[in-house]
Amino acid sequence: MAEKKVCEDLVKERKRCTFDVQELTNLIDGGAQGTQERRDVENIVLSTPGLSSNDDVPEEYLSHKERYENAIRKACILAEVVKKYAERHNTMDAFRPTNKYRVMLGVIKDVSPFMLHMGMFVPTILSQSDPEQLGEWLPKAMSMEYLGTYAQTELGHGTFLRGLETTATYDASTEEFIIHSPSLTAYKWWPGGLAHTANHCIVVAQLYTKGQCYGVHPFFVQIRDTDTHMPLPGVKVGEIGPKMGFQTANNGFLGFDHYRIPRRNMLMKNAQVLKDGTYVKNAKNEKASYGTMVFVRVLIVTDVSYELSRAATIAVRYAAVRHQSQPKPGQPEPQILDYVTQQHKLFIGVATSHVFRVTGYWLWDAYSQTIKDVGKGNMDQLPELHALACCLKAVCSRDATARVEEFRLACGGHGFMASSNLPIINGIVSATITYEGEYTVLMLQTARFLVKAWKQATLGNSMTPTVSYLVKFFNNDRVQWENTPSGIISGFQAIAAGKTKAAYDSISNYEKTGLDFEDAWNSASVQLVNASEAHCRAILCEVSWKEMVRHATNASPSLGKVLLQLAELYLVYWALEKRGDLLMYSTITREDIARLQARYEELLALIRPNAIGIVDAFDVRDEILNSTLGAYDGRVYERLMEEALKSPLNAEPVNQSFHKYLKPLMMKAKL
Amino acid sequence: MAEKKVCEDLVKERKRCTFDVQELTNLIDGGAQGTQERRDVENIVLSTPGLSSNDDVPEEYLSHKERYENAIRKACILAEVVKKYAERHNTMDAFRPTNKYRVMLGVIKDVSPFMLHMGMFVPTILSQSDPEQLGEWLPKAMSMEYLGTYAQTELGHGTFLRGLETTATYDASTEEFIIHSPSLTAYKWWPGGLAHTANHCIVVAQLYTKGQCYGVHPFFVQIRDTDTHMPLPGVKVGEIGPKMGFQTANNGFLGFDHYRIPRRNMLMKNAQVLKDGTYVKNAKNEKASYGTMVFVRVLIVTDVSYELSRAATIAVRYAAVRHQSQPKPGQPEPQILDYVTQQHKLFIGVATSHVFRVTGYWLWDAYSQTIKDVGKGNMDQLPELHALACCLKAVCSRDATARVEEFRLACGGHGFMASSNLPIINGIVSATITYEGEYTVLMLQTARFLVKAWKQATLGNSMTPTVSYLVKFFNNDRVQWENTPSGIISGFQAIAAGKTKAAYDSISNYEKTGLDFEDAWNSASVQLVNASEAHCRAILCEVSWKEMVRHATNASPSLGKVLLQLAELYLVYWALEKRGDLLMYSTITREDIARLQARYEELLALIRPNAIGIVDAFDVRDEILNSTLGAYDGRVYERLMEEALKSPLNAEPVNQSFHKYLKPLMMKAKL
Repeated sequence: MAEKKVCEDLVKERKRCTFDVQELTNLIDGGAQGTQERRDVENIVLSTPGLSSNDDVPEEYLSHKERYENAIRKACILAEVVKKYAERHNTMDAFRPTNKYRVMLGVIKDVSPFMLHMGMFVPTILSQSDPEQLGEWLPKAMSMEYLGTYAQTELGHGTFLRGLETTATYDASTEEFIIHSPSLTAYKWWPGGLAHTANHCIVVAQLYTKGQCYGVHPFFVQIRDTDTHMPLPGVKVGEIGPKMGFQTANNGFLGFDHYRIPRRNMLMKNAQVLKDGTYVKNAKNEKASYGTMVFVRVLIVTDVSYELSRAATIAVRYAAVRHQSQPKPGQPEPQILDYVTQQHKLFIGVATSHVFRVTGYWLWDAYSQTIKDVGKGNMDQLPELHALACCLKAVCSRDATARVEEFRLACGGHGFMASSNLPIINGIVSATITYEGEYTVLMLQTARFLVKAWKQATLGNSMTPTVSYLVKFFNNDRVQWENTPSGIISGFQAIAAGKTKAAYDSISNYEKTGLDFEDAWNSASVQLVNASEAHCRAILCEVSWKEMVRHATNASPSLGKVLLQLAELYLVYWALEKRGDLLMYSTITREDIARLQARYEELLALIRPNAIGIVDAFDVRDEILNSTLGAYDGRVYERLMEEALKSPLNAEPVNQSFHKYLKPLMMKAKL
Repeated sequence: MAEKKVCEDLVKERKRCTFDVQELTNLIDGGAQGTQERRDVENIVLSTPGLSSNDDVPEEYLSHKERYENAIRKACILAEVVKKYAERHNTMDAFRPTNKYRVMLGVIKDVSPFMLHMGMFVPTILSQSDPEQLGEWLPKAMSMEYLGTYAQTELGHGTFLRGLETTATYDASTEEFIIHSPSLTAYKWWPGGLAHTANHCIVVAQLYTKGQCYGVHPFFVQIRDTDTHMPLPGVKVGEIGPKMGFQTANNGFLGFDHYRIPRRNMLMKNAQVLKDGTYVKNAKNEKASYGTMVFVRVLIVTDVSYELSRAATIAVRYAAVRHQSQPKPGQPEPQILDYVTQQHKLFIGVATSHVFRVTGYWLWDAYSQTIKDVGKGNMDQLPELHALACCLKAVCSRDATARVEEFRLACGGHGFMASSNLPIINGIVSATITYEGEYTVLMLQTARFLVKAWKQATLGNSMTPTVSYLVKFFNNDRVQWENTPSGIISGFQAIAAGKTKAAYDSISNYEKTGLDFEDAWNSASVQLVNASEAHCRAILCEVSWKEMVRHATNASPSLGKVLLQLAELYLVYWALEKRGDLLMYSTITREDIARLQARYEELLALIRPNAIGIVDAFDVRDEILNSTLGAYDGRVYERLMEEALKSPLNAEPVNQSFHKYLKPLMMKAKL
């Protein structure tokens, strides 16, 4: 990028940066090699002709149908690029999920219609097929001879798996399963790529054999002819329509009319139906299926961290380029980044991106360790890991959405433009609150774990690591306040313990009025969600502080300082946000709170000079940012106009509707 | 509507309702006559052929250009309908702004390209033209011989009016103004209808005459030929592209190249440029222009209240129809409306719609009174009204957006569908945070008023009504807590006073470190925004409680009870949300807070049986709801499928992209 073209404001900002931007980029990528591999992948993909997200006519101008066609075109080119890479290299390491996710955003802007092929179809085959099935299906799925997806959610049921209505009834006479949708609400609804893209899918259905229901199981089902792509007889498939985001995901519906598949199309690693219809279950694998669910939720934490870094880059660069108002007569208009209210909106989002990333990687390590243990037959850590992944996925997705929205609002009217890309990022991120486990449902799952843990504490039993802090506050629920990071962390633990206790007591009280446990649980559920949120906040604060301190210790002193500022900002911000809870569960005083507020304002001022350097270090290429407001060169207004001029409406000075509608209206007015 | 078609759940809910739904509808409409007039307008408009929002192909499937053309078609038919109504009736009372806004949503779903014609173009002519200009322009604007808009915001400047760059330089030799855009950032950007619809507009520009700048003034400017609709020479006009909402508003850009208009095209009620170039100002009218700004902000409060009632209707009805999970073995899946976490998400939004409406009408009365006083030469109330309108517009727009988003999330995955209409409502509502005064800017304007008021209090001077409570807490900032509505209101006033004092002191402290006032103000601005928010919350609590009690007193006992429950829910919800502030500024204890929590859970349970009745009373017609999830009959799943089947992608079993892209990819895989 030629330096002379860069907006003067950004040139100045970059000069004043006090740390080595490249060092921070490497840290974010998990090392210099990580940065190199990511950039290689980005270079290979984004230099491929026809793959740029910067279409001649941006996709927001197209019809829903045209957008799909454009996305499929690119998804196919991208698939070829990835395949060629695989042929040339011995390893696909560089194409790890995070890097793939990132380049996808530089190609399709939104979500690829192939996302569930590699994201769910292939992994389910891998984890739930027996060896023979694996040998048959996996190569064709990997090479994309099969185009697949994963069909679980139905019109009538998402969260509550046991409520799924699609049936797979075994017919021993033909050795087939009959897949059937007994009602409208039994239609599969939502699977990405299902509408017009996939020709195979994993269907989750209630298994019936010998007149008995054995609950939901996965089946491998062909839905379209591989030659003509026509839906097969007995299959009703189509798309579900436009959404708030995921416009190019090709989400579909799918219904079956007594559709027959061979017996061996049931995925048989964990359970089998024998030829005669006998059902056999491998009990030891039951809990292991937790694994996939946890895996996807861990990925969501790091994905939303990345989306936050995209939104942060856009909003912080824009704030450095945008000048507005004149607080002092005769002085030039300041960069809006110099307004403290603007720093307040932006810097917590920047810090949150780092907090979620380091916590996500920590969770990833916990996951890998647990999966290793499971491999050795030790399932002890699974419930704790599950409880952790539930609340972290829920809270991170929700917080990230709030932060992206704040970034968007911080860009004023221009943040409302599709060309800022903030509305599209908002669509992608806010969906994560709902999919793969709805927020409230997940929070209540963690709450069940907390309530059980609290019960253990009342019995004096030992606690697992992530909840062992509860014991500290068992008899002393108002912790001694200390105005330090570790004091804030203890404060959050005291809040979590206090809220868990309050919810626990509330359930008991409701039970005493005659409610049964489930009704009492329901009555206290607002408090239970609050307890989960407090627990999750305590985890986020403790883990991110420890991880950031570790990184700071290993970094150069100039970068180390910045890392600690960001980590502390997160703690102080949330301490101020939750000061009411701290007043209830610690000895904090009004004077302490005033000191926290002063420290918060101090941290904003400390971070301000490095703001551009910090977002530059996220190293998001312009093609992946996709934003008129956030590009590296800061040519904000030029880009806004250039994008507007691509509008097909602007290709003609007068739209046909003038002659058809406006002129007759004006003529009548003259009469 | 035939009762037999209505979903059984809703039939049951309607039977258990304890109050007269029609009575509440009348109350919301400001009386039975209001209801009748609104329904008349809805009937006239929505029974007009071609006007239904229920297009054969829903507009979300169309290209950006087709959406515009569809919107213009409908806007023209609607304009005819309104004109005919005006010819038949002596009064246009029934077509008051609120009713027009509502039917527009039933016609265009989103925002009409004509919105600024009647919303800003006509009102500006009315308020800023001299009598001769009025006689010339108004009839043609009213009859829509002129199609107009209002062009103020530029690419580079929104909030900071003084920073606008467009110039209007008087040339005495030809008695013309030369309108010019000296830079790219001087281009007008955002005006609705500007792109391809308007042929005239009000342009706000820096007035130069005799070499001196007199600041921004409005000019009446023709931009397109009325016969051919071609942009006139010297005018560059077009559309700015897709956005997060307002897709059909036809927002445009506009630049001028030394474009000449006659001297008399300056709107001359408040200032004139004489033939020789002499500038003359009518000083007494200066402050009156506050009026329009306040008027628009008052309307935004009632508009977002209405949008909340739409979103509430959708989410509450869906929660009554949707069943999920099985907390008790063997029992049927409960309606999700029976989960307390769901009630927690929904009922505060329902209550907020009422709170904003009654506060908006109260503000409306204050506005009318102030304008009357201004007419008599008394401007005393203007600053207070302005400060009120600023914070109420800011807080109501932001809260409404948060509530709409919560409603959307409460509908799970289906709330993400465009056909739920919640994403579109979200787009419309969230824009209100930014336009007509950005949130933070407005909050800081109210903060200036508060800080001045606090200074008056320190000097022992008398206070204007809405801030007189500050005096009560001047020497005693920790109010005696009382667990009653008026106790909560006092608590909020104490919070506002305490935060105002803290911000005030903080400014002083920063000044003592050597900062000048504006830098000290900036450093303390996060606290200043918090003070404004607390002040606004105190106003919302006090006004809405008084107004709801008044309505309850005049209503039948059964309805009165419901109104008080909703009003109290709002108070208790916010008391719990802000318990940290109450702990700081009142004598509230942990036990009080536990009692509030219990009361909150009690109120949810009290409101639950009437939930459907309460949203039915909003009386939003299905055409205006526009939602698969929210229709009166509760046919949620049928409608979701019916809407999906309208997708042009679903018109063909195989999309052309299969042959072009997917098949070649699969073929290569086989090799």
